[in-house]
Amino acid sequence: MKFNKKLENIKTYEAGKPIELVVREFGIESKDIVKLASNENPYGCSPKVQKAVTQIVSNMALYPDDSMLKLKSALQKRFDVTDENLIIGSGSDQVIEFIMHAKADSNSKILINSVTFAMYEIYAKHVGAEVIRTTSQEHNLEEFYELYKSEKPEIIFLCTPNNPTGDAIDSVDMLAFLEKIDEDTLVVIDGAYMEYGAFKDKRKSVAPKELVEKFSNVIYLGTFSKAYGLGGMRVGYGIASAPIIKELYKLRPPFNITTLSLEAASIALEDEEFVVNSISSCFSEMQRYEAFATEQKIEMIESYTNFVTLLLPENKNSTELADALLRKGMIVRDLSGYGMNAIRVTVGTPEQNSRFFELTEQLL
Amino acid sequence: MKFNKKLENIKTYEAGKPIELVVREFGIESKDIVKLASNENPYGCSPKVQKAVTQIVSNMALYPDDSMLKLKSALQKRFDVTDENLIIGSGSDQVIEFIMHAKADSNSKILINSVTFAMYEIYAKHVGAEVIRTTSQEHNLEEFYELYKSEKPEIIFLCTPNNPTGDAIDSVDMLAFLEKIDEDTLVVIDGAYMEYGAFKDKRKSVAPKELVEKFSNVIYLGTFSKAYGLGGMRVGYGIASAPIIKELYKLRPPFNITTLSLEAASIALEDEEFVVNSISSCFSEMQRYEAFATEQKIEMIESYTNFVTLLLPENKNSTELADALLRKGMIVRDLSGYGMNAIRVTVGTPEQNSRFFELTEQLL
Repeated sequence: MKFNKKLENIKTYEAGKPIELVVREFGIESKDIVKLASNENPYGCSPKVQKAVTQIVSNMALYPDDSMLKLKSALQKRFDVTDENLIIGSGSDQVIEFIMHAKADSNSKILINSVTFAMYEIYAKHVGAEVIRTTSQEHNLEEFYELYKSEKPEIIFLCTPNNPTGDAIDSVDMLAFLEKIDEDTLVVIDGAYMEYGAFKDKRKSVAPKELVEKFSNVIYLGTFSKAYGLGGMRVGYGIASAPIIKELYKLRPPFNITTLSLEAASIALEDEEFVVNSISSCFSEMQRYEAFATEQKIEMIESYTNFVTLLLPENKNSTELADALLRKGMIVRDLSGYGMNAIRVTVGTPEQNSRFFELTEQLL
Repeated sequence: MKFNKKLENIKTYEAGKPIELVVREFGIESKDIVKLASNENPYGCSPKVQKAVTQIVSNMALYPDDSMLKLKSALQKRFDVTDENLIIGSGSDQVIEFIMHAKADSNSKILINSVTFAMYEIYAKHVGAEVIRTTSQEHNLEEFYELYKSEKPEIIFLCTPNNPTGDAIDSVDMLAFLEKIDEDTLVVIDGAYMEYGAFKDKRKSVAPKELVEKFSNVIYLGTFSKAYGLGGMRVGYGIASAPIIKELYKLRPPFNITTLSLEAASIALEDEEFVVNSISSCFSEMQRYEAFATEQKIEMIESYTNFVTLLLPENKNSTELADALLRKGMIVRDLSGYGMNAIRVTVGTPEQNSRFFELTEQLL
């Protein structure tokens, strides 16, 4: 059977290895496995969320409220925007998918950072669009602007703080950049790790409301998978001007968020204290990674996220290190697939981080 | 901002009204609302599923096992197929979406029944494909074959038992039809209600394993949203030959099923007794609908599903009836959008059905 030609170029996204797989492949007991590979919140999610979900577990048979009233109201309040500025996706991934299908096709170009979130390229391939990349590792907005002028992309993705490197764009620079972009080019500001970046440095903080008010061609993405500790529940969102949201809504499948996920995300927004405590612990633990990197003479990119990117010296191989750690039950992310001799490590609990330092020291 | 031209023709799917909306719009307390509009299992899901989900509620922070080992193993066992014959979607809807994006584009035609599940057409519009419909209300495979020969569609959808009419195709007729279709035309057998159809009449039962062994161009779809009582959890699946599954996998977003949904569906397959009891209760209650229809001189299509379709006489209007029921807290589905003067009613619990008969009798 023949399939659409564009499928020939699509490779499947390689997810971080789940604990289940390490149990199966290496026979390590799950209690002895530490997963610092997918930037989940090591403190889990708010106990209030767990309690709320447990209480509605008998509702699993009922289709979700497709208007998502409760969650959308909570997000409107959180970001001071209106209902027509909001769309909810099964992770912010799904909003990226809507954007790609709404704005790009096989005649389009997509402009992204040299090293950034893998799904931009994967979804671009779904529609057969060409991906243009910058050359610098950190987002260089001057280079973005030059490529914007010469390549005329339909969509520009700015991931800030960036995954998998952890650096972030100053919001004044971003706003100045956005002023120079014509209104028919869609700019996506992916703020999956924004809660971390804004906590660490106010200059990195981007306000979705300000973007919506100033720009008709910008969409901000957020997620519950990181700071809110709901990676398993698949809830993300897009915030943009009403005309953009209206078009994306046409591509949203009905019931794209489960009944339990809607409840979990709604309640998560009510417990900001949990989120702030998680973030605060993350950055105090991150200082230990900085000390470890200095001690081991490893270069570490300054991170505005809940992970650190360790750039290994030439005589060490990131794939080998990640593999050796895996065999000891420590799951981290090898970045060789991104063209980097580096590993990405989620900042875990104090105990998890100690274990990482101990194992890595032995292996380096 | 300009968007892709194909979006101009897309209308958003109208979901069955959730209980939350009736509470808001009509001020009826949720305990007084009966929802028989979305073909959910009125007995909920297995208590074993509820217990299992409650036990892993602390796992919400962890990304789902993207290999879906546990659920895929359970489905392999259930259907006696291999891992490479299986793909899991966020509802079987998502598998339909993968199929459409893999096989169709703006030059394609899609052949569907005159009245059938609305998402086939909606996803066809997402890729800009043309939708060809038969004329007869029930699936007429001769008419399908004539249109197949004259229109040369890329994909044919057979929904059996059919939603929203409830009729089903005899499996011998279906197999004879499939023999006549060339191997580059993809045939989708949507068995969302198959557990009900197969229980009521073995001749309607379609075995995915047999389809996979005999046909390289057929995909069977199933769901956990109906008989398994997990409409809120968004889990469905496709079963087909390995080459088809491999292509669809390229379009599957990572982590498309939540952590709790994977667990719920896996455990649901372990409690067949719950499912059989639900189905058995459904058909014994359906006899009351048959008696009611005869008494009220309403035509009712013989149903192989968990819902009944009541064709109203000319002097009654389905939209008005559905609306009047809604104001009394009884949510049913008006089928006027499908070009039918009919309502679709999910067979509920004995109490829910009694309430439907009582209210409808007053309004007719």
